Amino acid sequence: MFTSSNNYKELFIGIDGGGSKCKAIVMNNKDEILGTGISGPGNPLHGFEQATNSITESAKLALKDAGLAHLELSSLIVGVGLAGVNLPTVLKQMKAWRHPFKQMFLAHDLLIACLGAHHNNNGAVIVSGTGSCGFSCVDEQHMIVGGHGFPHGDKGSGAWFGLQAAKHVLLSLDGIIEASLMNDMLLKKLSCCDAITIAEVITDQNATFYAQLANLVFDAAEQGDKAALAIVKEGVEYISSLAHVLLAKKPLRLSMLGGLTPRLKRWLDKDLQTQLSEPLSAPEVGSVLFARQELIKQQGLNAQQSA
Amino acid sequence: MFTSSNNYKELFIGIDGGGSKCKAIVMNNKDEILGTGISGPGNPLHGFEQATNSITESAKLALKDAGLAHLELSSLIVGVGLAGVNLPTVLKQMKAWRHPFKQMFLAHDLLIACLGAHHNNNGAVIVSGTGSCGFSCVDEQHMIVGGHGFPHGDKGSGAWFGLQAAKHVLLSLDGIIEASLMNDMLLKKLSCCDAITIAEVITDQNATFYAQLANLVFDAAEQGDKAALAIVKEGVEYISSLAHVLLAKKPLRLSMLGGLTPRLKRWLDKDLQTQLSEPLSAPEVGSVLFARQELIKQQGLNAQQSA
Repeated sequence: MFTSSNNYKELFIGIDGGGSKCKAIVMNNKDEILGTGISGPGNPLHGFEQATNSITESAKLALKDAGLAHLELSSLIVGVGLAGVNLPTVLKQMKAWRHPFKQMFLAHDLLIACLGAHHNNNGAVIVSGTGSCGFSCVDEQHMIVGGHGFPHGDKGSGAWFGLQAAKHVLLSLDGIIEASLMNDMLLKKLSCCDAITIAEVITDQNATFYAQLANLVFDAAEQGDKAALAIVKEGVEYISSLAHVLLAKKPLRLSMLGGLTPRLKRWLDKDLQTQLSEPLSAPEVGSVLFARQELIKQQGLNAQQSA
Repeated sequence: MFTSSNNYKELFIGIDGGGSKCKAIVMNNKDEILGTGISGPGNPLHGFEQATNSITESAKLALKDAGLAHLELSSLIVGVGLAGVNLPTVLKQMKAWRHPFKQMFLAHDLLIACLGAHHNNNGAVIVSGTGSCGFSCVDEQHMIVGGHGFPHGDKGSGAWFGLQAAKHVLLSLDGIIEASLMNDMLLKKLSCCDAITIAEVITDQNATFYAQLANLVFDAAEQGDKAALAIVKEGVEYISSLAHVLLAKKPLRLSMLGGLTPRLKRWLDKDLQTQLSEPLSAPEVGSVLFARQELIKQQGLNAQQSA
């Protein structure tokens, strides 16, 4: 992309750093996205160096995509949404990072997802991709529900669905529980022939690996497989519980985000489906909105101090 | 310990390499254990170099304990039981190991546990410690049930119980499900104050970590906590299923082994309890019995060939 604007001071970089990739945009003051960039994992909880490298790289790629490769990162303000920054140790690490930008505003990835989805500070989101989580921002009060990670949390996420499938298929191949349509589907997906080869392939695998098995559970459920239906029911029940906990806060809007949304949505009860709104923009747009808000607050403070 | 025997040719080393530690014994031809040694993790699936170092170190420690530190490993025959050697890649790696012993006989850790428990090639074992697994050896046919690892397999193991507790407590602290006695117990055990600090402590933890939380589930269940009772019921149901799959093979004896045995046993139904026999010896004794058997087979083959 190319921009005719030469008022670079009004350009912002917005970043959404997630567990599997880091996405960046360059946005002008007319809310036009001039360029986008994608790099590797951006969750500092699973590697601070990897995450900070991904942030820098995605920003450079977005500038290049916008035809603005000549701009220095040190001349630009960035809004960064990151998974894991609700954890004190991660926040401390990130704040201590000697980042390459002119100024960096750091927020939880859920807050920027919410800002992006609603273009408003009052709203709620349910995210189900590799992980899962609920978040609301109402009257400046933030609430996070779930999202504690894999395998102990993140129920109803891609990784959770994939792990349930793997567990079920292993028990079934061992003759402990009834055979299921998922057995053949999982064996085929992993190019395996039995429980032992499956176990070998999945040993020490992470959430990203398991999330790739999630679609298979929905496929089997849609073909009427009882075991898959039971897993989908349990996952959807959790996502519904998240929704109800969030709706109790009375947000103006509630959106569902993340890669698993299309598969999950149709299993929610109709009443809940009608209460969901389509997200307006992606989280990385939320990061720009957040950075602008923070900058205005800061300028307001500076004005007060100098008055 | 000190032995008056000077017939070192009749000494064997027996090794049981598990996920958290590697145990070795020196045993003479009167089945007397002359010395024992314990070293670090011995599961080659989670690190080949660590496992092989642990095997060598535990053997040296056992010799030292027996007052036989002057003996070279290269003069001794060893039987080694190892988790993971049912997986082709692990078996290949282990067979290629340039080990320091005169001769090494390698077996699955479940086979040597079974041999140790029954002093006989016909028997079955259920192991529940950090992991869980069932194994039978009847008419020279081996059967492994379960034991696929954490978090996808190993139901009813210490790690499984601990993970269920963590999942349950996180959902409960999030207000998704009812509060449980386990909440306070887990918070105390992990020195945490809420769901976020628990999530921070348990992120990326392994089976060994989770297994340390297992006793807490049984403690809560024994105090009548419904959530804990449900977890115990599900885990015990799986262990019972394993037992029934094994008993269907009609082994002469069935034993339960592993650190969780005392907690699990009393929850099994009485009928199943009466079908369990106390193990006669530890797995590392099984490793010596295995090495002796293999040596006799080999000598028989050599005699045939030279006849």
